[in-house]
Amino acid sequence: MKCFAMLKIGEVGWIEKEVPACGPMDAICKPLAIAICTSDVHTVWEGAVGDRHNMVLGHEGCAEVVQVGSMVKDFKPGDKVLVPAITPDWNSLEAQAGYSMHSGGMLAGWKFSNFKDGVFSEFFHVNDADGNLALLPPNINYVDACMLSDMVPTGFHGVELADVQFGDTVLVIGIGPVGLMSVAGANLRGASRIIAVGTRPVCVAAAKKYGATDFISYKQGKIEDQVMAMTNGKGVDKVVIAGGTVATFESAVKSLKPGGNIGSVNYLGSGDYINIPRVEWGVGMGHKTINGGLMPGGRLRMEKLGSLVSSGRLDVSPLSTHVFEGWEHIPEALQLMKDKPADLIKPVVKLA
Amino acid sequence: MKCFAMLKIGEVGWIEKEVPACGPMDAICKPLAIAICTSDVHTVWEGAVGDRHNMVLGHEGCAEVVQVGSMVKDFKPGDKVLVPAITPDWNSLEAQAGYSMHSGGMLAGWKFSNFKDGVFSEFFHVNDADGNLALLPPNINYVDACMLSDMVPTGFHGVELADVQFGDTVLVIGIGPVGLMSVAGANLRGASRIIAVGTRPVCVAAAKKYGATDFISYKQGKIEDQVMAMTNGKGVDKVVIAGGTVATFESAVKSLKPGGNIGSVNYLGSGDYINIPRVEWGVGMGHKTINGGLMPGGRLRMEKLGSLVSSGRLDVSPLSTHVFEGWEHIPEALQLMKDKPADLIKPVVKLA
Amino acid sequence: MKCFAMLKIGEVGWIEKEVPACGPMDAICKPLAIAICTSDVHTVWEGAVGDRHNMVLGHEGCAEVVQVGSMVKDFKPGDKVLVPAITPDWNSLEAQAGYSMHSGGMLAGWKFSNFKDGVFSEFFHVNDADGNLALLPPNINYVDACMLSDMVPTGFHGVELADVQFGDTVLVIGIGPVGLMSVAGANLRGASRIIAVGTRPVCVAAAKKYGATDFISYKQGKIEDQVMAMTNGKGVDKVVIAGGTVATFESAVKSLKPGGNIGSVNYLGSGDYINIPRVEWGVGMGHKTINGGLMPGGRLRMEKLGSLVSSGRLDVSPLSTHVFEGWEHIPEALQLMKDKPADLIKPVVKLA
Amino acid sequence: MKCFAMLKIGEVGWIEKEVPACGPMDAICKPLAIAICTSDVHTVWEGAVGDRHNMVLGHEGCAEVVQVGSMVKDFKPGDKVLVPAITPDWNSLEAQAGYSMHSGGMLAGWKFSNFKDGVFSEFFHVNDADGNLALLPPNINYVDACMLSDMVPTGFHGVELADVQFGDTVLVIGIGPVGLMSVAGANLRGASRIIAVGTRPVCVAAAKKYGATDFISYKQGKIEDQVMAMTNGKGVDKVVIAGGTVATFESAVKSLKPGGNIGSVNYLGSGDYINIPRVEWGVGMGHKTINGGLMPGGRLRMEKLGSLVSSGRLDVSPLSTHVFEGWEHIPEALQLMKDKPADLIKPVVKLA
Repeated sequence: MKCFAMLKIGEVGWIEKEVPACGPMDAICKPLAIAICTSDVHTVWEGAVGDRHNMVLGHEGCAEVVQVGSMVKDFKPGDKVLVPAITPDWNSLEAQAGYSMHSGGMLAGWKFSNFKDGVFSEFFHVNDADGNLALLPPNINYVDACMLSDMVPTGFHGVELADVQFGDTVLVIGIGPVGLMSVAGANLRGASRIIAVGTRPVCVAAAKKYGATDFISYKQGKIEDQVMAMTNGKGVDKVVIAGGTVATFESAVKSLKPGGNIGSVNYLGSGDYINIPRVEWGVGMGHKTINGGLMPGGRLRMEKLGSLVSSGRLDVSPLSTHVFEGWEHIPEALQLMKDKPADLIKPVVKLA
Repeated sequence: MKCFAMLKIGEVGWIEKEVPACGPMDAICKPLAIAICTSDVHTVWEGAVGDRHNMVLGHEGCAEVVQVGSMVKDFKPGDKVLVPAITPDWNSLEAQAGYSMHSGGMLAGWKFSNFKDGVFSEFFHVNDADGNLALLPPNINYVDACMLSDMVPTGFHGVELADVQFGDTVLVIGIGPVGLMSVAGANLRGASRIIAVGTRPVCVAAAKKYGATDFISYKQGKIEDQVMAMTNGKGVDKVVIAGGTVATFESAVKSLKPGGNIGSVNYLGSGDYINIPRVEWGVGMGHKTINGGLMPGGRLRMEKLGSLVSSGRLDVSPLSTHVFEGWEHIPEALQLMKDKPADLIKPVVKLA
Repeated sequence: MKCFAMLKIGEVGWIEKEVPACGPMDAICKPLAIAICTSDVHTVWEGAVGDRHNMVLGHEGCAEVVQVGSMVKDFKPGDKVLVPAITPDWNSLEAQAGYSMHSGGMLAGWKFSNFKDGVFSEFFHVNDADGNLALLPPNINYVDACMLSDMVPTGFHGVELADVQFGDTVLVIGIGPVGLMSVAGANLRGASRIIAVGTRPVCVAAAKKYGATDFISYKQGKIEDQVMAMTNGKGVDKVVIAGGTVATFESAVKSLKPGGNIGSVNYLGSGDYINIPRVEWGVGMGHKTINGGLMPGGRLRMEKLGSLVSSGRLDVSPLSTHVFEGWEHIPEALQLMKDKPADLIKPVVKLA
Repeated sequence: MKCFAMLKIGEVGWIEKEVPACGPMDAICKPLAIAICTSDVHTVWEGAVGDRHNMVLGHEGCAEVVQVGSMVKDFKPGDKVLVPAITPDWNSLEAQAGYSMHSGGMLAGWKFSNFKDGVFSEFFHVNDADGNLALLPPNINYVDACMLSDMVPTGFHGVELADVQFGDTVLVIGIGPVGLMSVAGANLRGASRIIAVGTRPVCVAAAKKYGATDFISYKQGKIEDQVMAMTNGKGVDKVVIAGGTVATFESAVKSLKPGGNIGSVNYLGSGDYINIPRVEWGVGMGHKTINGGLMPGGRLRMEKLGSLVSSGRLDVSPLSTHVFEGWEHIPEALQLMKDKPADLIKPVVKLA
């Protein structure tokens, strides 16, 4: 089968591979649409998951099931499905402890284009089909469905980690596609004020639609200074980090009230340390909780978040600014994500 | 009245002050016994709370009520009481949000020997007597009662922040008096294995009594290396930090499983940043929650923790290694805490 | 001063009383607008809080501060304020435990028109002004402000007790004004499907605006049968009870998935027992949590929920279907609440 | 193979069956010891799970693995294992939602001697071996190991549902073997006072060992009256129900403070309704949370609770009052559980 792969760090291309084998609990799927993730860019050009050779790229997409294992009960060939980027092993100790994304080791619930081939391929393999796939609601189109693989669950997980409550003032740092979904998620959890950090006009416009009430440009001075000015020196109740670097946590801690939470869903690609400022962290005792986590994957989450889209509560269509048709556009879409032109949020490629 | 005070940074001495005035909700108390805290040492010799002049020291003690305000309902002169180190303003927004210790501002629930005079004085002032005092159970002696002001609630709060559960393996870093209470607290919350970091023989002996099952000396190599060797490379479920410096968090993160929590109750006196190691923190996504907090103060907590002592579930007597009788010993007791001789855990001075 | 009072069970009327005294922490306020609550009807005609004589009615309203006690820091005469129906004693053991509404005893945070005179009076007394009042945001009008005393916090508390999460299917039983706010709250917490039980056209129309997606009439058969038909036999994730009787819990349990929660905020006026059906409650082991609670009162909650209204996230104007101007309309407004004509949701009386 | 089975309601006996087949994720085990549960008595003589014919009894035991499926990674023939009574399907939606015990439907995680043959058989089948078995720690003997199948996890789950915290006063209703483990669990979670309801001397003696501080006999009057007398009219912080009937909840609600929790792990065999007293439940608004749940099963829980026994934190040996050796004693042991002689807590049969 034809696959679009990372050949080595810094190089991509089309390769041929065998169709993967289907174990008793597994499914083999063919993609109906795929989306490019910033992680794909990190993987290829920054070696984020290490040096890999001829590894099929991609972890966002929706698909049609073409084969299922003997133990699969709830899916059959022909079913159209949502596919989460994170596909845990549900019987692992970590999943039993509530951390399915770390099943088998830290971050090891992330398998596509990390521990195994990804979804930019004629066919791809899904472990534990019953536990990880979800039926595609008929009123969600293939392009929107791709946003449910990673953007929606990751952005919303930041909001869960920050534990947004009714009436909170929330700072969302970063308004790329994940941050936009954090804005939408904070809005859907009852925040009354959402301060978004970001400047790209296409993202600012989308963030407003998703509920952002105030904007900060990091070009206008330190985030924390602007936050304090906006909040009469009180700071915000919660912070979601969906962009930036290890240095971003310093601004987050400084912008936060005691008793507040930081929920980060940002991949930190470089730097030895995340720096937590000692004094503003209450000399160790300020109850400013710092959490960061890979999004939970799996079927239940796909069904729950999918229901927000299918019920019309969440409109993900503004995310897909660049939609292509046909396999041949995958390289172009990936390059677009690398180049990040001004009008880009997410590139999607329809394959059916 | 006679008071033992910080005259300026680096200098202490006896001074005379007026007996404090008693507002409508307040109480004036005379101490029955007081204990010295490491924080007193930090306050005087490190200027931990800033430069203060003629500020009465001390925030650990038990007392007798000598006067109450017109609105106080539950206490009267002659009552013997437990006195928490942290005395919140309970109607503040922070207390209503569940963070009474930060009532009026980060850490501002800590008033004794910080924003007002402390307890090393013939008489001292307690704000909101009904909300902050607790009757001394008759079977708790004055020396043990002093341990309930700060050591027990602080040590136990670390265990709450780390959220210890049945069967957890818990790492407790630091086994001074607070750390010992974290060991006791982890034991009382159902940990099955408690790995304690510390070497002073008097503390190691006490830690064993309180439930520590394994010991690590930071002199024998990195904490994280020893933890990994002890846990077959898996790490611990939870970490309580009750000692060390900003650098301690690096070991804590590296010793912890994904999905685990760090609960810190340690005062961090120097360093610009707490350094969280990026890779072992899951490149931002490992769900290793980092929390640090001043202990909650107030009456309910005193009553609850006092009941553990009065019911015999918790024996705090091993903490008070050096007990003096009489006001004149306060300077000596403070000096002892500064010098930390090998056999010291806590110095206490009985005043009645 | 002139007051509208319950003279005895079944009888109301205008009486004269002394202006209440203002303690050190208290405020005296004059109402700017008041609203009638179904509880006022229960109090007068059902003797819900017991037999009371010449007790001023009312616990919903907004006001202007006319006097404050010597210890009050954050309010002064002339301030316009939101007034919560529940005004806890914040230093009580119950409030310290997180249950301010039960400060001083079960339900004893409810003081207005229960343990002391209510707000249908030229002047009324507020205990702990700093802890219980909130500044009226300038862009909230007096009529809308009345909805924040009880309807919004009570309805939203049901959603908190039920612990609604992203993508949940929620059953809201009862769509009077409290139930409507539960619908709005479930919507603001990220429910994807909200099934509302109720039939009055004015309420159904409002419920649709607030996010209800499906409707059930109890006249069309058992609630649980209709829920099961709507959910392919699976039941709902969460139930909010905002109306009905002790019998309503049977339908709630039968409509709920294992692992789901029932959050009730309904006053249960009669019946010896709430009946939990044994088999559908999993013969005792189905993890269908049953909770019911008086809403938390106090300042923080007023500020947080007020911010949802002032930011435009929550429009409470559809609730106030009948707005009167002038003191003389209070009896008529109360009678209207008793009679519940078809087009009524809430009667409000503007006084300024 | 030889099996001890329920032939029909009210009748037991030895039968022959085929050795069960081993699916790809499964294990076939032979028991090393088994224990009798009150549920076995309910199943046979009360038809608690319905009419069953020739169903092998038993869900408590430890075992040796004799065969594993092709996908099993962590167990191999010859391994000695702890076997939980509840063996969930971990990839189910319910398990993903945190309710593994209800995987596939309410209570459907309970498979042994309910939906499939139990463990009183030469060989028995375990679904999802990696997810449900745990290695038997070498220092736990076979008899003690049987207590980890159901008694320890069920009793401790009651404590988790009641959410016992440091210093709580806890009422444990019922001190059969499950209730004794609830006493032990409350003690291990930091309760300072544990009031146990029960009268059988052997159980009272064991309860004292496990940490009960006070005892109530239901023969001496209503439980709630005795609780109120013991607590100065305040009631208890938490209630664990581990015995009694549907009527027990009335006493539990009446004994509980507002803001308290009831955690029930008792099988309720008869009665249409659990009766919650309206007035003492705060006319619907007292925040007395009522929860009841089947214990979580599976490997992680076995490992965690097993570690409490292997570390010496929990001594389960007092539970096994009657230990037999050899298969032929199973009928006698079952009869003993039915007859409940004065000196019985649990009968165990060693098979190796």
